[in-house]
Amino acid sequence: MAGKKLKIIPLGGLGEIGKNMMALEYSDDIIVIDAGLMFPEADMLGVDLVIPDISYLVERSQMVRGILITHGHEDHTGALPYVLAQMKVPVYATKLTQGLISLKLKEHHLRDKVKLEVVQPGQAFNLGKFKVEFFRVCHSIPDAAGLIIQTPLGIVVHSGDFKLDFTPTDARPTEFSRLAQLGAGGVLLLLSDSTYVELPGYTPSEKVVGQNLERIMAEAPGRVIITTFASLVSRIQQVIDAAYKYNRQVFVIGRRMTEIVRMALELGYLSAPPGVLSRLEQMRHLPLNRIVLLTTGSQGEPTSALVRIANRDHPQVRIQSGDTIVISASPIPGNEGLINRTIDNLFRQGANVLYDKLAQVHVHGHGSQEELKLLISLVRPKFFVPVHGEYRHLSLHARLAQTLGIPKENAFVLEDGDILALDRERGHIVAKLPVGNVYVDGLGVGDIGHVVLRDRRMIAQDGIVLAVITVDKRTGQLVGLPDIVSRGFVDPTDAQALFERGRDLVAKALGHGDGHSAQTDFISKKVKQTLFQFFYNQTKRRPMILPVIVEV
Amino acid sequence: MAGKKLKIIPLGGLGEIGKNMMALEYSDDIIVIDAGLMFPEADMLGVDLVIPDISYLVERSQMVRGILITHGHEDHTGALPYVLAQMKVPVYATKLTQGLISLKLKEHHLRDKVKLEVVQPGQAFNLGKFKVEFFRVCHSIPDAAGLIIQTPLGIVVHSGDFKLDFTPTDARPTEFSRLAQLGAGGVLLLLSDSTYVELPGYTPSEKVVGQNLERIMAEAPGRVIITTFASLVSRIQQVIDAAYKYNRQVFVIGRRMTEIVRMALELGYLSAPPGVLSRLEQMRHLPLNRIVLLTTGSQGEPTSALVRIANRDHPQVRIQSGDTIVISASPIPGNEGLINRTIDNLFRQGANVLYDKLAQVHVHGHGSQEELKLLISLVRPKFFVPVHGEYRHLSLHARLAQTLGIPKENAFVLEDGDILALDRERGHIVAKLPVGNVYVDGLGVGDIGHVVLRDRRMIAQDGIVLAVITVDKRTGQLVGLPDIVSRGFVDPTDAQALFERGRDLVAKALGHGDGHSAQTDFISKKVKQTLFQFFYNQTKRRPMILPVIVEV
Repeated sequence: MAGKKLKIIPLGGLGEIGKNMMALEYSDDIIVIDAGLMFPEADMLGVDLVIPDISYLVERSQMVRGILITHGHEDHTGALPYVLAQMKVPVYATKLTQGLISLKLKEHHLRDKVKLEVVQPGQAFNLGKFKVEFFRVCHSIPDAAGLIIQTPLGIVVHSGDFKLDFTPTDARPTEFSRLAQLGAGGVLLLLSDSTYVELPGYTPSEKVVGQNLERIMAEAPGRVIITTFASLVSRIQQVIDAAYKYNRQVFVIGRRMTEIVRMALELGYLSAPPGVLSRLEQMRHLPLNRIVLLTTGSQGEPTSALVRIANRDHPQVRIQSGDTIVISASPIPGNEGLINRTIDNLFRQGANVLYDKLAQVHVHGHGSQEELKLLISLVRPKFFVPVHGEYRHLSLHARLAQTLGIPKENAFVLEDGDILALDRERGHIVAKLPVGNVYVDGLGVGDIGHVVLRDRRMIAQDGIVLAVITVDKRTGQLVGLPDIVSRGFVDPTDAQALFERGRDLVAKALGHGDGHSAQTDFISKKVKQTLFQFFYNQTKRRPMILPVIVEV
Repeated sequence: MAGKKLKIIPLGGLGEIGKNMMALEYSDDIIVIDAGLMFPEADMLGVDLVIPDISYLVERSQMVRGILITHGHEDHTGALPYVLAQMKVPVYATKLTQGLISLKLKEHHLRDKVKLEVVQPGQAFNLGKFKVEFFRVCHSIPDAAGLIIQTPLGIVVHSGDFKLDFTPTDARPTEFSRLAQLGAGGVLLLLSDSTYVELPGYTPSEKVVGQNLERIMAEAPGRVIITTFASLVSRIQQVIDAAYKYNRQVFVIGRRMTEIVRMALELGYLSAPPGVLSRLEQMRHLPLNRIVLLTTGSQGEPTSALVRIANRDHPQVRIQSGDTIVISASPIPGNEGLINRTIDNLFRQGANVLYDKLAQVHVHGHGSQEELKLLISLVRPKFFVPVHGEYRHLSLHARLAQTLGIPKENAFVLEDGDILALDRERGHIVAKLPVGNVYVDGLGVGDIGHVVLRDRRMIAQDGIVLAVITVDKRTGQLVGLPDIVSRGFVDPTDAQALFERGRDLVAKALGHGDGHSAQTDFISKKVKQTLFQFFYNQTKRRPMILPVIVEV
């Protein structure tokens, strides 16, 4: 056994926000923590989703004992359908998380092919040489968990996504005492959530939001229309409770919100007194100040119910004077524009809109600096690896750990693909895997590469110009004048004169009529050069030039 | 005179952030306030700038008496070169603003063609039936002004972009007393900045930033590298003052920063004790803790000095251990990603980076709620029109005015193009001009329209497929097989089999070899349908299909 090391291999989520995935490897056993997706950034044109590169695992699939999912958010579960299509391996999660994963696998017709195990927090189980136990943490979804993993070299604690919250809606706070116990006995490694390391102090409790929602339900003169993340079941519970308290009925609209409310009621994660949840058809019988609409659309998603309402495009709901809209969510970076446009449109129709800048109608789900410090202080690990964050978050978190006594050489700022090898005494980055992004676009997984994206970006910038050159196949001579067509370059109605001059220039460049024969490559290059230069001089734009040579 | 009305015509900046521009019209006189640009939003692919549509003014250019520029920021001055290319009209501004406009007009070879007047705050001048006076306001650029405009119907006050700040760096606070005087005498209309109406309380003074910069200069173990908006001359003054106090020398890098520092020194808006500003060549003679680098790049602009330093791509400056970087600016919406990537890269090289989330190294330039309330309370206008903001900002600002006693029917939420006609008693929106965005792309101003952008978006999403169909000009019959080429659709190396099947399908659809003749339109339509359906089924992507028909 001497000399065997524990390897920590982040495959996603370190150096970026999203697509969280990590492997722990010891001897011939691998366990995987999370399998998330990331939504594409602005320059990933046309890409639907981004998932981690799992080549390392696929090559070693015989060694992979299981995938542990800490909670049901997309950035921790969204890559599962793609991973499970490539590897047959059991998935372990708490009950609600398992329910959400089931919905997802059904959509991908994979539900029957996967072994999906429900785990009770506090019950340990073996996966190869690892012994795994889930522990409860608070986060912006119920049934979130951290992990306690016993390895032959010592205990590894993974925080999951967490905050402390002494007064959560489901009355199940983060399990400190278990962590303190572990800390006393000695922990080899702590992997901890870095998302909100920039924020000083403590993240406020969910209770604050509950109180504000109650006040809104009490005081709103008319309907309350409220949107939140569909998976934020505790917030939905708060809406139901506040509505009940002030004698309002709740109507759920939007496909995903309806689906999740139904499942959470079935699994016991939501409870509603009889008569509070009603069908939309009943709404017209009620006075306006007895109505709450709970809807999708907290991120300004163009096809969501709230956005359709804001655009006067919803079949059943129109904004009325006296409506109060509550956006009980914060924007996921990149969605600010969509959300702002939705808020603007709601204001335009005379609604009163409450959102994060105006009222505390949301708290986020990650711990701030003092909570991160508390976790490190309780667990007292020998080694520390910040997870979940862009590079600055990881750096700042590693520094925070140093202020709490973790030696600098024991706090590792890793990025995706770095392989950290630990023994009981020290750790080293021993290799760097080439783990890029895998893009999902339509049915294609991983076939969108550098070239395709570069072409999309180039054309998106200044359009494309096609030059169709007909040449005599025997003589290589130009037949007639070239044909020029463009898309996204200049206004087609204005372009005629420009393109006529372009045609003449190409013909001249190719020596139209002088009897020379020429090779396809030469023609192609010549056409590109001529037109690129001409169009750039005329317009200061750089369209993609695509010569098409037809031999007849 | 009876029946003549004052018209308020916002041409930009109401319902959006940026491209601020407004006209006031009375009888046959028009004056214009500001002429700004807006940087393109994410879906305006390839567009360089967005400027207001000034058709209304161009049609009435004989009536336009002057353009009043409140301050030197791009969102108030950036459209001037385009406006002045279409209209010969004098421009009025304070001294520094005039200096900045001069630089801009020189770049466009317009400096000698434009009458550019320097205005002293407090000195009134006539423009047709309007009498105009500038008054000092604090903002994130020196020499910012609001406007007092006497019209035959009463006084109009325009706040410009403003905050109060009792202790600004240049010791020239916003001129309350002048406004209070006016308020006592009666003001017809207040137009006021809505940008930060969502923020409660007061915007902190520039002084807070100065104190923090001093502490950083005192405590940083090595070099301090600081970036801010080049036009934020007061911040540059604070950097120079703090550096001087702690015996550091300041080295300016980046073209625009150098240019503005030089101009501000010449015009007397910056002062530097001898020896504080040094040339970069001198830097290597100094100990690290005596160096301050003042650089462009506060918005993560890819070609700026700071970004090149962060990417190890700057010819003279490399990050060293012990460097402290200060991002003394807040992200302009849309730039967050670029800035975060820059901060990450600086952390990667071991620098300590201080930015808005970690330290108060910037305060913004607009008044918060209490300041907006104070302005309304001092001016006590009969009518109120919130300016500068998206719809929600304008709505919230109008409501704020109502809480201060402005009747609802006298507070107007206008959007670009609305014409508000006021007499002494009441106001009505009497018309709506069709004022869209004018896009500038390369040399083209206004030629990028709906079609070009739609094409760019479509191709950016899923790429483009060209199908070259050669037909016999006499028989209309297909000659050989079609040729298929794509860009940005699928990986070219994987595409061969897909395209071969596509070619066969097209040939079949066109009845290859069956002797029918066909029209170009018919062929084109058929090819589009066939390939679109086939590629969508195979890939769930929707590339633009562009049939090119060559007749031989």
